Amino acid sequence: MEILVTGGAGYIGSHTCVELLNSGYDVIVVDNFSNSKPESLRRVEEITGKHLKFYESDILDKAILEKIFSENNIEAVIHFAGFKAVGESIKTPILYYHNNITGTLILCTEMKKHNVKRLVFSSSATVYGMPKSVPISEYFPLSATNPYGRTKLMIETILQDMYSSDKEWSIAILRYFNPIGAHQSGRIGEDPNGIPNNLMPFITQVAVGKRDKLNIFGGNYATHDGTGVRDYIHVVDLAKGHLSALEKIMKTSGIEPYNLGTGVGYSVLDLVKNFEKATNKKIPYVITAPRLGDIAKCYANPIKAKTILKWSAQKNIQDMCIDAWRFQVNNPNGY
Amino acid sequence: MEILVTGGAGYIGSHTCVELLNSGYDVIVVDNFSNSKPESLRRVEEITGKHLKFYESDILDKAILEKIFSENNIEAVIHFAGFKAVGESIKTPILYYHNNITGTLILCTEMKKHNVKRLVFSSSATVYGMPKSVPISEYFPLSATNPYGRTKLMIETILQDMYSSDKEWSIAILRYFNPIGAHQSGRIGEDPNGIPNNLMPFITQVAVGKRDKLNIFGGNYATHDGTGVRDYIHVVDLAKGHLSALEKIMKTSGIEPYNLGTGVGYSVLDLVKNFEKATNKKIPYVITAPRLGDIAKCYANPIKAKTILKWSAQKNIQDMCIDAWRFQVNNPNGY
Repeated sequence: MEILVTGGAGYIGSHTCVELLNSGYDVIVVDNFSNSKPESLRRVEEITGKHLKFYESDILDKAILEKIFSENNIEAVIHFAGFKAVGESIKTPILYYHNNITGTLILCTEMKKHNVKRLVFSSSATVYGMPKSVPISEYFPLSATNPYGRTKLMIETILQDMYSSDKEWSIAILRYFNPIGAHQSGRIGEDPNGIPNNLMPFITQVAVGKRDKLNIFGGNYATHDGTGVRDYIHVVDLAKGHLSALEKIMKTSGIEPYNLGTGVGYSVLDLVKNFEKATNKKIPYVITAPRLGDIAKCYANPIKAKTILKWSAQKNIQDMCIDAWRFQVNNPNGY
Repeated sequence: MEILVTGGAGYIGSHTCVELLNSGYDVIVVDNFSNSKPESLRRVEEITGKHLKFYESDILDKAILEKIFSENNIEAVIHFAGFKAVGESIKTPILYYHNNITGTLILCTEMKKHNVKRLVFSSSATVYGMPKSVPISEYFPLSATNPYGRTKLMIETILQDMYSSDKEWSIAILRYFNPIGAHQSGRIGEDPNGIPNNLMPFITQVAVGKRDKLNIFGGNYATHDGTGVRDYIHVVDLAKGHLSALEKIMKTSGIEPYNLGTGVGYSVLDLVKNFEKATNKKIPYVITAPRLGDIAKCYANPIKAKTILKWSAQKNIQDMCIDAWRFQVNNPNGY
């Protein structure tokens, strides 16, 4: 069964390709390498011992998508491709809206044209905005605090309207919490360009000596130690969640959002301590001003995914730290 | 001063071109005639005795926009181009999102590239969703009940983010209430394709004998006669509102929404009676089921436009009926 994976060379994309190939799917990747490297796909093949088909292209290029759908017998699409940096999205919102929303519109247009109506979409817990309580369930009200989040929210709305107009569509919207860690082989992992936006790559870069110290944004949140609490999930667990979603949308049409998280919250300092324990490395840190739009606590109620997708996260915070560290040590300068 | 008018051949666009030319602006129109005719632009020139420059193109065509901005010395853009039929938007949402949102994103990208940062955007009172009370002020909460409305709402949000990222932009968001009527010359007016979606063209087509009777959607609303109440505004008044907005954005940067309405609500039956009185024509009607998403009453608080733009509607309901009828009689089959 042929699955198109947009943005398949990225962090979550590459781990998902590994799981797809290991489960016997044929994988076709389209990626423009705007925030990833071809090497990650080479390593996906190395890890799995299998071949994947690859197109280097932007999904905004309708002609290439046309070619991809014509040349292959695609049965479903897992759509990762999109910009994801909050700060950048505030500086260049039009670029973000165009890349994320127009990209999805062109993809859906081509899918419909070729009668491929099964889609797994990468959304984010950011669509819960400033949730009134935790844990967060899928029926919580949605909002967003920055343009990146609004692209995710708008795409969810657009997909809902698309489904309403044509009930043959089968769509899983996956709302990711905070993926960290790496494949246990240490061959693929998170490889951000420039200064990491996310916590774990920053920690591993401090641990490996690339950066002096960790900046923790905000130490006065209403949490057990004052630092923000998040639902960290191992990227391999997250990748497996995509396979469960894929199996689900193969069976029935509809559109449903699913939280992909562990249901457990750890503070920034909890994560630092766990990392130090797992790796025997000291992480110097300073607590600086909180970032605008950041919330105190964010973790999932993951019961819907457990019940309907038969999926739940298996790996713990120590696994996440050890695996993230292994990738960093093996790849001190990324791919 | 050169003004680019996207969708300038359409109903509101063509009336705005007349007012722009009459006020001494140089007008450049880009239109793909997806829902309009070249004849309307010929008549704009006939009415005004002035020439306008014209490009037949879709605003989704980046290369043409590039050419338009390079060949001309454009100082501001009035952006009408977009699909506008609620029913169609429910059936083909992806087409609507792509045309309206992607079109605006490409336009804004080209504007910024050519350092043109003055924009008047055609929004709609539909962004107030189901307002809790009337009259409706600009600070009311926003929502939408269909994909068409969501395209307007999303574009407003995107423009807000764009302004936040670059404070040189100067943007007026015009939230139209219900434009009816036609230019007093009887040469330009509303010329819908197929069955009219809006009330007045339906009334005039019944009056001229093209249709048997008027269907009134809903007769049990909480209004004085049970039919829905709307804020009908003469299209020439509305067009003049664009000139006031243009003058405002020439002076200061910022982004502001303005209601363009009269502040007075008329029911469907009020409009029918006024039309009958103005034209001496009988309009047979039947009251049928209400349309999903329609609200009982919708009319503007127009004080913000009056105070800040120094604009208010001048023409009354009789003017609207007489002018709409004149256009219909002179153009029984449209352009």
